[in-house]
Amino acid sequence: MSEVKKPKKMAIIVHSGSLDKLYPVFMLSSTGAAMDVETHLFFTFWGLNALKKGGLESAGLPGLMTIDTGMMKERIKNAKVPSLTELLKMCRQMGNVKIYACSTTMEMMGVKKEELIPEVDDIVGAASFLSIALDSDVQLFI
Amino acid sequence: MSEVKKPKKMAIIVHSGSLDKLYPVFMLSSTGAAMDVETHLFFTFWGLNALKKGGLESAGLPGLMTIDTGMMKERIKNAKVPSLTELLKMCRQMGNVKIYACSTTMEMMGVKKEELIPEVDDIVGAASFLSIALDSDVQLFI
Amino acid sequence: MSEVKKPKKMAIIVHSGSLDKLYPVFMLSSTGAAMDVETHLFFTFWGLNALKKGGLESAGLPGLMTIDTGMMKERIKNAKVPSLTELLKMCRQMGNVKIYACSTTMEMMGVKKEELIPEVDDIVGAASFLSIALDSDVQLFI
Repeated sequence: MSEVKKPKKMAIIVHSGSLDKLYPVFMLSSTGAAMDVETHLFFTFWGLNALKKGGLESAGLPGLMTIDTGMMKERIKNAKVPSLTELLKMCRQMGNVKIYACSTTMEMMGVKKEELIPEVDDIVGAASFLSIALDSDVQLFI
Repeated sequence: MSEVKKPKKMAIIVHSGSLDKLYPVFMLSSTGAAMDVETHLFFTFWGLNALKKGGLESAGLPGLMTIDTGMMKERIKNAKVPSLTELLKMCRQMGNVKIYACSTTMEMMGVKKEELIPEVDDIVGAASFLSIALDSDVQLFI
Repeated sequence: MSEVKKPKKMAIIVHSGSLDKLYPVFMLSSTGAAMDVETHLFFTFWGLNALKKGGLESAGLPGLMTIDTGMMKERIKNAKVPSLTELLKMCRQMGNVKIYACSTTMEMMGVKKEELIPEVDDIVGAASFLSIALDSDVQLFI
């Protein structure tokens, strides 16, 4: 009866910065958070753009589809799906979604800590994140 | 001797609808099915197009590569690799591949149940699929 | 005291052949190798190009971004991140990163064994790799 159940853990490498990929990231995270899943997001490469101030708001569809970004946002809104910024806020309110920026990407892209949104919990390297992933129930590369 | 071995389980989030990504989805699923792996496919975002009637047949290469779709299909055929439709049929015959359409994507894209192929087992949300993924041995985002 | 700890295991399906995706593959692999994680890489579809002689050197950014490849390589160099070829060499020196080429892709793309770099450990099918993945702690599709 006194057994404490270890919470489930999910680790997502967020490599993409486009709208269509950031949606599954934040939908899975907010859904997981509501299910008591401890979620860890590691933003690397193009994904880092999403953590820059204004980054989530300006994310669009990739490549040639970029011209359809407005239409897609309209559809998302009409389906009563929250915006990325609202999903991020929901994740933070639930408290079990951790957000990491990749230190190597920051150096590569010349991004300073001050340019990142305050929701970033830590700036870490691949080794730190891999340790978390190795100990997780679900790992995804998005 | 009476020990019953729990079958291995694989959960794939099918986010892409392009030919080059749908092939690994159905190759892994049919291969897994033959190895007694219980496979669960969750078609979301662009991936939903693959579940629309005629969707698998019309899937092409992404972006600018779309002009090479015919050539790629020819190569696939010459290598004696089954078509996507044939792979789907193989998966269904083996009986341990489950196909889910994402309910949120259906609403967003304005897709009705009648537009989907009959092989779809269920229309579910992210929470239902995440429960399956958390309990799986392999999880992939394709 | 005599307990032998089973090493952690990571299985990555390398589907993409572009520079931005090959970096996470080799960064995770070399980082994992240094952490005693046994890593298995299965190069399939576009990923097979990376295993052809000269393939890692000629990998560029995808689609329309291809024109920025030189600039990205410059940034990577300035951040003191090793080249893909150097990362591959590091992986091989550590000895716990195994590299597989997908047999079906080789047939489809008409690639002969002699065209592959000598670092390839084996040419295998999806079933062989799936067996490894089912027994791994981390699985990623990149």
